[in-house]
Amino acid sequence: MSFFPQLRKDPIIDRWVLIAPERGVRPMELADRGEFKRNRPCPFCEGHETRTPHEVFAVRRPGTLPDTPGWQIRVVSNMFPAARRDAPPSQGRDLLEACPGYGVHEVVVESPRHDLSLTDLPCEHVRSILQVYQQRVAALARDSRLQYVQVFKNQGAAAGASVEHVHSQILGVPIVPRDIAAELAGAAAYFRSRNRCVFCELIERELADGERIVLANERAVAVTAFAGRFPYEMWILPRHHGSDFQSAGVADLDEMADVLRTLLDRLQRRVLGINYNLVLKTAPLQSEPRPDYHWHWRILPRTTGIAGFELSTGWFINPVPPELAAQRLRE
Amino acid sequence: MSFFPQLRKDPIIDRWVLIAPERGVRPMELADRGEFKRNRPCPFCEGHETRTPHEVFAVRRPGTLPDTPGWQIRVVSNMFPAARRDAPPSQGRDLLEACPGYGVHEVVVESPRHDLSLTDLPCEHVRSILQVYQQRVAALARDSRLQYVQVFKNQGAAAGASVEHVHSQILGVPIVPRDIAAELAGAAAYFRSRNRCVFCELIERELADGERIVLANERAVAVTAFAGRFPYEMWILPRHHGSDFQSAGVADLDEMADVLRTLLDRLQRRVLGINYNLVLKTAPLQSEPRPDYHWHWRILPRTTGIAGFELSTGWFINPVPPELAAQRLRE
Repeated sequence: MSFFPQLRKDPIIDRWVLIAPERGVRPMELADRGEFKRNRPCPFCEGHETRTPHEVFAVRRPGTLPDTPGWQIRVVSNMFPAARRDAPPSQGRDLLEACPGYGVHEVVVESPRHDLSLTDLPCEHVRSILQVYQQRVAALARDSRLQYVQVFKNQGAAAGASVEHVHSQILGVPIVPRDIAAELAGAAAYFRSRNRCVFCELIERELADGERIVLANERAVAVTAFAGRFPYEMWILPRHHGSDFQSAGVADLDEMADVLRTLLDRLQRRVLGINYNLVLKTAPLQSEPRPDYHWHWRILPRTTGIAGFELSTGWFINPVPPELAAQRLRE
Repeated sequence: MSFFPQLRKDPIIDRWVLIAPERGVRPMELADRGEFKRNRPCPFCEGHETRTPHEVFAVRRPGTLPDTPGWQIRVVSNMFPAARRDAPPSQGRDLLEACPGYGVHEVVVESPRHDLSLTDLPCEHVRSILQVYQQRVAALARDSRLQYVQVFKNQGAAAGASVEHVHSQILGVPIVPRDIAAELAGAAAYFRSRNRCVFCELIERELADGERIVLANERAVAVTAFAGRFPYEMWILPRHHGSDFQSAGVADLDEMADVLRTLLDRLQRRVLGINYNLVLKTAPLQSEPRPDYHWHWRILPRTTGIAGFELSTGWFINPVPPELAAQRLRE
């Protein structure tokens, strides 16, 4: 049997799965979960640029050439893509629906140095990383077949990271995924009934309440999520309303970078463990600016397991009240 | 601050979270993930019955008393409940909606012996476990405030288990959870358009296709899930249509027990690792028999991590094509 990446819809609910055999995980390797692959020399380290696919973007010293040393941040195609541009045509069935796994899967190598975490990097560097994300999201938006882009960072093996070198990922897909669609629908419903962006309202309510505020400055507000799925889960919202990340202004972006860096640093220092997912929430790529959606980031610390209850019901059990988490993160 | 278990709704989407501070996980302990707590003597072992809450049900030798040795399967209340019956009244707010964490959380200790897995138990014993589940689900259904019951088993630390002694859990909740509601809606939509249960149709289609069939006998059909979120994910469906598990006949239940035991045994032998979640899917507790829903079990092997992409989008990446998985599980 030969397989291409494929998108398959669950026969009962509107949830798609990327079947990505190119990721090359075979049963013997599956048991390695939790251990980083020690394939040295690391292909993400400076000087090993030929061990990755060609770079699609980089922040590098003037005069240096692509795929050579001299970069600070480097974006390459994922070597084991969950989706790819040359997928074959759909096999279209009804109950068992599949379509080609069309998409773009990129890796953002955040530093030439192997053994750093995001919080070890200077503020300016973290700001550059957010600018790189923004440029890549804007670039992907020009491909009209891509409907959504997920920017995400998996820090630590418990958060699903398989490579140790500091990096994040960008995955563009041809369908707006289930949970994003649910958020858009929820936000749209709120807007219809109150004529206001639910996130703008949330910022106001949280500032008035105060008990879940972790950090608030002129441009951004960070709260522990009222119904967070994970202990210490944080939502970081720009005060300025905007539905898509790629249209955010430089000042908002810089401030967001500083806030993210501060929060991740506090999380590492005050809650043992450095396993977390950092995810961007933004409007669909081919969408006009929307009054009802509001881009933001979420930090999902991965200190508790995801078990059968969560995977069957979609509900989570969070043992740390968000108000208590906020208090600890504020101190 | 003092906290009771609470159910909180996400401000944007219709997803509730159980805030369960009684589970007593403090930041320092959160980092222990992946390691079993070695609190010996184990409270689930025979002879330590006084170390758990009182038993609510047991399969035991005639003449032996509750909370004493002599049992084969023992059901007790969870010592760290995610929900409890005496929760205080709701605080009802709009954008930030919470209600008391009313519910029932029980543990099914599947054997008096500590170091066994489900597949080490004789067929008869596994059949008894399913009968115990059935009796407990029927008992919970008599509480009209409970709308759904999730029976689940977490095997192995990577599957979220925190206790080593062979056990499973039953959690009854006062709202039909999001993913269950989505399944009911999907199944109802299919029924409206085709006048047929989507699961009955799925069984027929899968038997005709054949490539995802792992095992099929007179009463049950096991397939690798067409759009499985996890490598080797299996759905095990009774051929006889029935919407709720508690109404299943003895023959169907016994056959299901034998099939589950066989599949878990194959999974352990052919795919390295014994981390999995086993989850029951059944109609809401207070529902009449439905022509459009079909109870079944799912086995979710936990060999791949759940990372930022999955947690933000609700989509999963599965590196093992289900057809290949079925082939390996059939051999």
